Amino acid sequence: MQTKILLPEDKIPTRWYNIIPDLPGPLQPVISPRTGQPVTPEEMLAIFPPSILEQEMSNQRWIDIPEPVREIYKLWRPAPLFRAHRLEQALGTPAKIYYKYEGVSPAGSHKPNSAIPQAYYNKVHGIKRLATETGAGQWGSSLALACSMFGLECTIYMVKVSYFQKPYRKSLMQLWGATVHPSPSPHTEAGRALLAQDPENSGSLGIAISEAVEDAATHGDTNYALGSVLNHVCLHQTVIGLEAKEQLQLVGDYPDVVIACCGGGSNFAGIAFPFLADRAAGKNVRCLAVEPASCPTLTKGVYAFDYGDTAKMAPIAKMYTLGHDFMPPGIHAGGLRYHGESPLVSQLYEAGQIEARSLMQTACFEGALLFAKQEGIVPAPESSHAVRAAIDEALLAKEEGKEKTILFSLSGHGFMDMAAYDSYLSGALEDYEYPAELVQESLKSLPKVVM
Amino acid sequence: MQTKILLPEDKIPTRWYNIIPDLPGPLQPVISPRTGQPVTPEEMLAIFPPSILEQEMSNQRWIDIPEPVREIYKLWRPAPLFRAHRLEQALGTPAKIYYKYEGVSPAGSHKPNSAIPQAYYNKVHGIKRLATETGAGQWGSSLALACSMFGLECTIYMVKVSYFQKPYRKSLMQLWGATVHPSPSPHTEAGRALLAQDPENSGSLGIAISEAVEDAATHGDTNYALGSVLNHVCLHQTVIGLEAKEQLQLVGDYPDVVIACCGGGSNFAGIAFPFLADRAAGKNVRCLAVEPASCPTLTKGVYAFDYGDTAKMAPIAKMYTLGHDFMPPGIHAGGLRYHGESPLVSQLYEAGQIEARSLMQTACFEGALLFAKQEGIVPAPESSHAVRAAIDEALLAKEEGKEKTILFSLSGHGFMDMAAYDSYLSGALEDYEYPAELVQESLKSLPKVVM
Repeated sequence: MQTKILLPEDKIPTRWYNIIPDLPGPLQPVISPRTGQPVTPEEMLAIFPPSILEQEMSNQRWIDIPEPVREIYKLWRPAPLFRAHRLEQALGTPAKIYYKYEGVSPAGSHKPNSAIPQAYYNKVHGIKRLATETGAGQWGSSLALACSMFGLECTIYMVKVSYFQKPYRKSLMQLWGATVHPSPSPHTEAGRALLAQDPENSGSLGIAISEAVEDAATHGDTNYALGSVLNHVCLHQTVIGLEAKEQLQLVGDYPDVVIACCGGGSNFAGIAFPFLADRAAGKNVRCLAVEPASCPTLTKGVYAFDYGDTAKMAPIAKMYTLGHDFMPPGIHAGGLRYHGESPLVSQLYEAGQIEARSLMQTACFEGALLFAKQEGIVPAPESSHAVRAAIDEALLAKEEGKEKTILFSLSGHGFMDMAAYDSYLSGALEDYEYPAELVQESLKSLPKVVM
Repeated sequence: MQTKILLPEDKIPTRWYNIIPDLPGPLQPVISPRTGQPVTPEEMLAIFPPSILEQEMSNQRWIDIPEPVREIYKLWRPAPLFRAHRLEQALGTPAKIYYKYEGVSPAGSHKPNSAIPQAYYNKVHGIKRLATETGAGQWGSSLALACSMFGLECTIYMVKVSYFQKPYRKSLMQLWGATVHPSPSPHTEAGRALLAQDPENSGSLGIAISEAVEDAATHGDTNYALGSVLNHVCLHQTVIGLEAKEQLQLVGDYPDVVIACCGGGSNFAGIAFPFLADRAAGKNVRCLAVEPASCPTLTKGVYAFDYGDTAKMAPIAKMYTLGHDFMPPGIHAGGLRYHGESPLVSQLYEAGQIEARSLMQTACFEGALLFAKQEGIVPAPESSHAVRAAIDEALLAKEEGKEKTILFSLSGHGFMDMAAYDSYLSGALEDYEYPAELVQESLKSLPKVVM
């Protein structure tokens, strides 16, 4: 029985798939929080290189992947596709379960798929340093890795509470050469203002974004890089789905359902968009985004213009949102705690082209343990949402006595998330469903955008 | 440029290479600490299944790998062989550097290569539970994984100080279903006796071995499993070198030097033995075992009969040893702290067929950082010894202006060893060379064995 479906290096995609021309409607504009008008290219070019800006709005369906990016991708790509024979047997399901494993990257998740091209385009544009924010640390470590590959400096504003609670992620960024500041920091005006009010401010992703953007905007040699949400990030992640399609073709298979966890949306976009592209050719595939019940952006939020960050510094985008004041509780799947959602994923969901589901975290950890005992790999807590949903789909197939082909993205490993597993194993983990009335409350502060 | 050399699953070796018939002399007997006489098969069968005992003394050069073991190997094998193009360029060396990456296993190191067959043979023999000891936790987690794969229970005696200092390794074992006891524990006579003397006893690997062996010997349904040192463990690890040879053949290459870190010896044996086998065919390859200067078994120890453990409960074997009373300082490469050495590796070293070198830990971490910045992967602190030695060989080639092909075993990743990197990055790590006079002191307690 074949377990791993591998591709040779020359099968690393040469082009990313851009879903913008295939959207169910026109691309929605991004609004400047300062002017209330669509963000101008000049505003964008203060923090992004031209190639990234171009990708953000491109109508080209296929965009070439630069050779130097493909060279770095070779350090771990093509990522393996696994057939989960042992899990299927344990579940007694007639379904076939495949998982695309992105934990093989040096940073342990799918994030480097976008960090590498972002670092590359900035390097080519003559930029010397990248600034970014990080919460749990997956993105920060991936950008640190990417900068070390292209000889760029890297400054990371890490939410202060994570900086001290997750020192190992910080060490990972540092060993790849990045400078990591606990945020709020004394290195930016935004940070200094907050520290003046409260020196004990423990930080938030919104604050860290503000600091990183300010750093980039105020230094000519420095740009900003974002790890999810934006169109170009979703674009870069399509290598996941493009490879998976080719791998399934090798074994003569095609999925009935494609599943991924969904925070900012880039991992989901990465595996799902290339399959959505096949609909034009008459292929019918369900795409299921899975989010935590504690941060149910798609399943309980609204489709509206909202700020990208709590501090109202980041652009306003039309997306599913729980409101920028939304304060997610401290659940462990740190990568899925964003109040908003990729505008592309949001638009597809609004049009009914994709599905969404929210899950309780203990159910996800339970699924992750079953998976780890059968397949070996310990999933990241974020990825455990996709694992659980895949198991549920497989059990449904068993109940209905139907054959079905399930593909999910195992977006990262959990080696650096053992504290979360420890809580689960010791019974300390509690479930939390974000109450609908709190959503109503935080939605009151949506900005008024007249389009 | 090709970076990864991959093999399809049907190229997972079908046979392990057993070096015993190719040793420079007869296999040395193992002595019972109780009788002072060679250990009898009956004594061995109290804790090992017959197939393992057979492998321990077999004169067959090739031993078939059972199909169910190869099926589990498919979860991560064949492991990739990388050509370190970026590292070579950074060093400006004319040498070619290849590394075989064993960190792709679900446990993150080469250890499952032997844990899986050990669990399998015990399962087939009707055993219900395996007991073992673990220090840093690499072996414990690998055996936990293997037991979960074959539906065996698993009890792990974990050195108490590590149990509390490295809670995440413990969680990893638990999530794969193992029961983990801090050792000394109240679950064995050996443990109870020590706790009665000192309830605060923080444990040692020697004590944990005694507890695991007692557990196995006193329960009919339970056997013992060891993660290194013994002949059958070295045998199982030869999949590393066998695959690497085949991968190098694909690119028309053959190493001038094969490098691995060496603690108990199984990782070194795994990559080196299959190349040593080629000497009969006239191929000349240097094999270099790298150990920490703080635990210099081969480079400063003696070749003599010694106890396998501090408590003098384990068999006496002829090996390189620093004396069973040797107390290694708390360096971070936990997997390289054993006072002894695989008898097979020892015999080859004594006969001058392999080389050994000891390195300071800060030099190893420095090499690991250089490696991580170029190749991405963060090496385990143990593996960083091989990384450093490979870099040194490559720099020597540059100095001499010689082409050279270097192969090393990157035996595991460092995601769970960030505390060690943190110490290094913060400058808190100190070098320590084990003083020769202390070796002389601990060698005074070698057992007298008349053969």
